[in-house]
Amino acid sequence: MLKKAVRSVTSHTEYLTMNTETRYAIIDITEHVERVRAKASLREGFVLVSAMHITASVFVNDHESGLWSDIMTWLERLAPAGKDYRHHLTGEDNADAHLKRMILEHQVMIPVTDGKLDLGPWERVHYGEFDGQRPKRVLLKAVGI
Amino acid sequence: MLKKAVRSVTSHTEYLTMNTETRYAIIDITEHVERVRAKASLREGFVLVSAMHITASVFVNDHESGLWSDIMTWLERLAPAGKDYRHHLTGEDNADAHLKRMILEHQVMIPVTDGKLDLGPWERVHYGEFDGQRPKRVLLKAVGI
Amino acid sequence: MLKKAVRSVTSHTEYLTMNTETRYAIIDITEHVERVRAKASLREGFVLVSAMHITASVFVNDHESGLWSDIMTWLERLAPAGKDYRHHLTGEDNADAHLKRMILEHQVMIPVTDGKLDLGPWERVHYGEFDGQRPKRVLLKAVGI
Repeated sequence: MLKKAVRSVTSHTEYLTMNTETRYAIIDITEHVERVRAKASLREGFVLVSAMHITASVFVNDHESGLWSDIMTWLERLAPAGKDYRHHLTGEDNADAHLKRMILEHQVMIPVTDGKLDLGPWERVHYGEFDGQRPKRVLLKAVGI
Repeated sequence: MLKKAVRSVTSHTEYLTMNTETRYAIIDITEHVERVRAKASLREGFVLVSAMHITASVFVNDHESGLWSDIMTWLERLAPAGKDYRHHLTGEDNADAHLKRMILEHQVMIPVTDGKLDLGPWERVHYGEFDGQRPKRVLLKAVGI
Repeated sequence: MLKKAVRSVTSHTEYLTMNTETRYAIIDITEHVERVRAKASLREGFVLVSAMHITASVFVNDHESGLWSDIMTWLERLAPAGKDYRHHLTGEDNADAHLKRMILEHQVMIPVTDGKLDLGPWERVHYGEFDGQRPKRVLLKAVGI
């Protein structure tokens, strides 16, 4: 009886390693979010999806390659590469990636309801890479009931 | 005794349907967040407020119509409508809405402390619509103790 | 036996008061996030770090002063101060701060795994101030197991 009354809290964490072929890339990672939810047997709660590197994003938008291209063109206009950034005095050349990642989000909380990712019809979780061609991690953490 | 020692975890989810009269709109939805918190009897935790459509935002800012107007003018400058977006090759005309929604946030986690929304003096939760005049949903999910 | 089976849910909230010497400032507050995690004895879960004032940000990026300078220069380009904003008709002069805070994030969820902040190698939590020189609060809320 008591066991039924008290709902058990669960937590499960995984790390996804991304290594894109190009410096800039957008990749749909929704299937990994569902995989982590399932492993956690999560019925109610959230999956946090968070870029662990500060030159990458995690965001929710449409799975449509034309839009992905528009997003990259637009980010380049708002935060262009190759400018005279002070961050480059450290020897880095990726200040634009630090800025681009902030226009988008660096993390999202995906709601889980009745054992399913509770997403709208077109919502897909994406990884945005702005300084790739090397391994970088994404944290997926399911917490709830 | 044991029931007192173990604090019960609760979860409650609702969906708000927005249908704005204009294509672009900003609407204060804070009262709905408090309603969902109350229904969940949430004392400690979070209410996730998340736009389920990818051409809308949820963000926290001032309830002030002059600022709302400034936000819309500014978003139009940074992500103008009617340009030659590749997304429009699919037949859509709303690429600007996909971009505008990303400058703002698409979701927020509203903290709940001692049974109240734990907001600063001017913090209000807003829905930002960039492709309206049709029903679109916002998820409100209260999780905690 | 039962007590072991049911993991106890915990919640702990603190408020950090920021009062910057300059109107615009970026400050690393990661140590405060860890302090709140430790006080909550949190092993698994999240620490929400959220600016309670609508002219400030909380974001995750590199602890590098050149980059901080780049961020401020860039925000000023995208959302300049001193323009003819409608918000200023209320007597305020800080519309740019309301906009700048939205390009960055206003809150982050810091994951906690095995009793530690689960951050990538360069991830640091920052407070971004765009209308300072007066006391403003940041909420830190640890929730989990």
